[in-house]
Amino acid sequence: MTHPFLFHSQTQDGFCLSQGLAQVTLRTQSQGIKKVYLRHEPDNEEYLVEMQPIEPVGALKQWRASFALNSDRDVTQYVFKVLTEDGQYWLDARGVQKRMPGSEYHFKYNAKHQPPEWVKEQVFYQIFPDRFCNGNPDISVKDGEYTVKNGTRPVVAKAWGEAVDTGSGYGGCEFYGGDLAGIASKLDYLQTLGVSALYLNPIFTAPSNHKYDTTDYLTVDPHLGTNQEFAELTQALHQRDMKVILDAVFNHTSCEHPWLDRGGKGDNGAYHHSDSPYRDYYFFDGDTKNYIGWKGIENLPVLNFAHQAVRDYIYQGEDAVIRHWLKAPYQIDGWRFDVIHMLGEGEGAYNNPHYVQAFRQATKAQNPQAYVLGEHFFEATKWLQGEQEDGSMNYYGFAHPVRALLAQQDIAYDPIAIDGCEFVEWLNEARAKVPWLNQLSQLNQLDSHDTARFITLLNQHQGYMEIALGLLFTYVGTPCLYYGTEVGLAGGQDPDNRRCFPWEQVDTSPWFGYVQRLIQLRTTHPCLQQGAILFLAIEKDHFAFTRQLGEECALVVVNLASQTQPISLPFWQTGISAGQLTPMMEQRAPLAISEEMCMEIAPESISVWMVDTK
Amino acid sequence: MTHPFLFHSQTQDGFCLSQGLAQVTLRTQSQGIKKVYLRHEPDNEEYLVEMQPIEPVGALKQWRASFALNSDRDVTQYVFKVLTEDGQYWLDARGVQKRMPGSEYHFKYNAKHQPPEWVKEQVFYQIFPDRFCNGNPDISVKDGEYTVKNGTRPVVAKAWGEAVDTGSGYGGCEFYGGDLAGIASKLDYLQTLGVSALYLNPIFTAPSNHKYDTTDYLTVDPHLGTNQEFAELTQALHQRDMKVILDAVFNHTSCEHPWLDRGGKGDNGAYHHSDSPYRDYYFFDGDTKNYIGWKGIENLPVLNFAHQAVRDYIYQGEDAVIRHWLKAPYQIDGWRFDVIHMLGEGEGAYNNPHYVQAFRQATKAQNPQAYVLGEHFFEATKWLQGEQEDGSMNYYGFAHPVRALLAQQDIAYDPIAIDGCEFVEWLNEARAKVPWLNQLSQLNQLDSHDTARFITLLNQHQGYMEIALGLLFTYVGTPCLYYGTEVGLAGGQDPDNRRCFPWEQVDTSPWFGYVQRLIQLRTTHPCLQQGAILFLAIEKDHFAFTRQLGEECALVVVNLASQTQPISLPFWQTGISAGQLTPMMEQRAPLAISEEMCMEIAPESISVWMVDTK
Repeated sequence: MTHPFLFHSQTQDGFCLSQGLAQVTLRTQSQGIKKVYLRHEPDNEEYLVEMQPIEPVGALKQWRASFALNSDRDVTQYVFKVLTEDGQYWLDARGVQKRMPGSEYHFKYNAKHQPPEWVKEQVFYQIFPDRFCNGNPDISVKDGEYTVKNGTRPVVAKAWGEAVDTGSGYGGCEFYGGDLAGIASKLDYLQTLGVSALYLNPIFTAPSNHKYDTTDYLTVDPHLGTNQEFAELTQALHQRDMKVILDAVFNHTSCEHPWLDRGGKGDNGAYHHSDSPYRDYYFFDGDTKNYIGWKGIENLPVLNFAHQAVRDYIYQGEDAVIRHWLKAPYQIDGWRFDVIHMLGEGEGAYNNPHYVQAFRQATKAQNPQAYVLGEHFFEATKWLQGEQEDGSMNYYGFAHPVRALLAQQDIAYDPIAIDGCEFVEWLNEARAKVPWLNQLSQLNQLDSHDTARFITLLNQHQGYMEIALGLLFTYVGTPCLYYGTEVGLAGGQDPDNRRCFPWEQVDTSPWFGYVQRLIQLRTTHPCLQQGAILFLAIEKDHFAFTRQLGEECALVVVNLASQTQPISLPFWQTGISAGQLTPMMEQRAPLAISEEMCMEIAPESISVWMVDTK
Repeated sequence: MTHPFLFHSQTQDGFCLSQGLAQVTLRTQSQGIKKVYLRHEPDNEEYLVEMQPIEPVGALKQWRASFALNSDRDVTQYVFKVLTEDGQYWLDARGVQKRMPGSEYHFKYNAKHQPPEWVKEQVFYQIFPDRFCNGNPDISVKDGEYTVKNGTRPVVAKAWGEAVDTGSGYGGCEFYGGDLAGIASKLDYLQTLGVSALYLNPIFTAPSNHKYDTTDYLTVDPHLGTNQEFAELTQALHQRDMKVILDAVFNHTSCEHPWLDRGGKGDNGAYHHSDSPYRDYYFFDGDTKNYIGWKGIENLPVLNFAHQAVRDYIYQGEDAVIRHWLKAPYQIDGWRFDVIHMLGEGEGAYNNPHYVQAFRQATKAQNPQAYVLGEHFFEATKWLQGEQEDGSMNYYGFAHPVRALLAQQDIAYDPIAIDGCEFVEWLNEARAKVPWLNQLSQLNQLDSHDTARFITLLNQHQGYMEIALGLLFTYVGTPCLYYGTEVGLAGGQDPDNRRCFPWEQVDTSPWFGYVQRLIQLRTTHPCLQQGAILFLAIEKDHFAFTRQLGEECALVVVNLASQTQPISLPFWQTGISAGQLTPMMEQRAPLAISEEMCMEIAPESISVWMVDTK
């Protein structure tokens, strides 16, 4: 016997709370299932609850059991054990296994510290402010207006659209004049595209164009606008029912922050005065001028969170930075915490979980509905168990595997070769370690200000870019589009990935309509925002999955092969046995649903369908 | 290209500390390797250190890199990234992967809280005292001498070797008279067999025969002997350079413990007196007589570690139970903590990690060389990262997979079918999650007082039992033999698995010599105690591995098939290219070593060889 079909939806379809009990449903094939258990660990020990058959759905049996959520911890884990005619199988959050899976892959329900409901409903749009739109040329950085890199490098003002300097290593010193007024002027555009939430790269006062080198956490950079303008921007966004989150760069400051004042402009900075009141804001080596810089970079001195004044300033005080921008008149909707896993005490990340929890608490104390998003370039599992982050920038569980599959590159731009089976395994493993509600609140991106543009990694391969975008808007997690992707903006590694938005291409780019349709699809179908995922096909050169929520079901089919091929879909596994499939992104005829379907899919393409059971 | 050959030994052969740096060696095939990186996370962020080629060994290339151990945490994780002509591969503690493995599988070095060196050198022997040997009939329980089960059931005295009562559910009330004097009388026997350490099931005063229902933690049960006799026993063991660990049953007491005194013998027990000074020793529901029992069993009231007096009594006080027995005149060598994962506050296991760490600290404060062993019927990974346990009763990573492979049963006696590939994958996954030094200190068993006897599960299948025993003494981890296994003692589930030791079978059992030879092999070869493991073959119907340490190398080959088959062994992967293999358990000729070997192995058998390079 091959693996039996077993499926559990962690949505309301398969998991609900009633009178303090979790009621879970397992779907199985109708034949060959002898006994079904729910396994949980109320006190770290195995308890097996025999599941009882309930009414079938389509060709599937359904089994149900109730059990008490764990009282001794925040996250309740459970898994299913199934006895069949040839032995036993287990269902965990990855899929069907032949033995009891390791604890990290059990289904997880996060009773406390749930992410805000609104996050999963959004389509985010990431803006690098200097490069999006210049709305107020009066405040644009002037050529040579000031120096950066600790006074060694004059800033450069460039014309909109002029090529960025990719060779000098001084890409951070070039300015194109994008600003808050520019963003405010494009809200109609963004709503036409369909995005509903903005993630802005840092906007607080800082010498570089990327502003990851803060000199003032409480003031918008004057070249981007004013605090007043930012307040007006957030109000305008909220009036449109849009959200906005900001970049929180708290691991380190600029070396020109008055606390350190490496340039010696003030009279009590920590760098020149070992008796400075700010000396303990950083990690100095005794009375020397040596301090810890982020990744050894002296321009980015690491903050010392063991020092109470730093804690007060950043998150503990009543008007600490974290709270300040969550309050009126700004009321931002969340924070994206930069390199949050690296933050701590001293050279390592000592006490990191404590601080991430504290950042969360400060954020939620001000607004329980704020989104706590962590930046992690690699695996973020341990920050995503509830009490730390709502979601992470999902490089590990989305961007990396999609890039490996379609661009054959890893995050370090080294070659990697994986097939469709390995791709799906990767997605499933990464996803399964995180509680379901946090899976939905992961911020999925194809690229960002820290990676080469995806279309450039693909050498402009149209079919693969369509697959990538299709996955971005149909896979589990909240999509985030990096500005310009919708008009095919290209670019290599930093700083080439931060080119000016080519506004002249909006009307002509073939990508705009494609992305707009995908966003609309996502936005109008709750099953794509929070439906359970079920892989109907997993092969080397193709795969297919459904997203299902209540009566709604979307089907996504990806053909990786360079020729059209018929793809077999055991549609009976969805429990839907009648109706038709309507294509969402292509001009083709609807298909009648049958238990075993076969679908012709064009080469190197993605095909998205909605079930219509009426 | 198939997966390249990559191997890293976490022993002194591949990992050593020098001037605060870890120096690691990776072995690879000689062809097709373009670049090799060591990946570590000094501050939770990826750092790739390019490894440099050093002198080759045999047909293998060797690569080396040094890196600083993590300063911000106890366990340093690392993994290898290898670029080849067709992409990239990773080596983690399981083996070669096609993408960066999840954090749980990275190699782990546990700089603090290392297990005692002596543990891995031992062969343990588990004794259920009432059933091993009656050395003093005067103290044996007399028929009807007292009652158990809260006064409802008179004890039963039975003749040595008489069948245990498996039907009544009162197996815990039968006594056969085994005692400490009996154990003391058999030390010559145990040394002849070759065992070097004893694990005794509970010996403190308790009504049942199994004594997991303590009524006095400071007094040996009078039917087993006296404190004085126990002191003499441990002294005799230590004189023979043998070790002894005791069962620590601290999650719960007997309901007849004077603190609870359900029977009402005293005048201030918590059960009958809601104002009892011991009331808070347990979890009572207000002023009622309802309290939390272990797994709901009212005879086993759960102790309340949130109460300071309990903490003082069990582990915090200067003469707390944990310390008491580690001191002279007893000086036991460690504790086996019963159901340690379930211990905590209230109904769940709230605050469990705190208490397990506290038990460890109390133990190590008294004797830094004491063994802290946890009982876990299932996955124990999170207790085995250093700061909690040295090792666990390794059901999850040894007993379960061996039972599944050979007896086709899981721990709940449900059928399970796995092949050789799935077996090895299971072993590797379970092992890889634990730091290497803790892997070596896992207590491997085939069976125990809590499971059916392995030979009974096998229906006396001789070949499979030889394979199981062979694995017990050659696999990674410290072997523990359940008393009587060496004479083929059979028995079904509890209480049938606790039959009297059949002393008359010692001279006739064919198993005695087989086990004795395996023990000798293990004891005389450090590579079997702490050598790195390398699987040379992983197939459905056979597998083979080496254990290698310095110049020493053992080879273990298992043929699961029902016919003799030639098994291919790419022996070049060991780096050994000359010499011969000498059979250790069979009468057959030595084999000359060559790069690609082929070995005929008898059906359903295990074959153990030692390399002789002289």
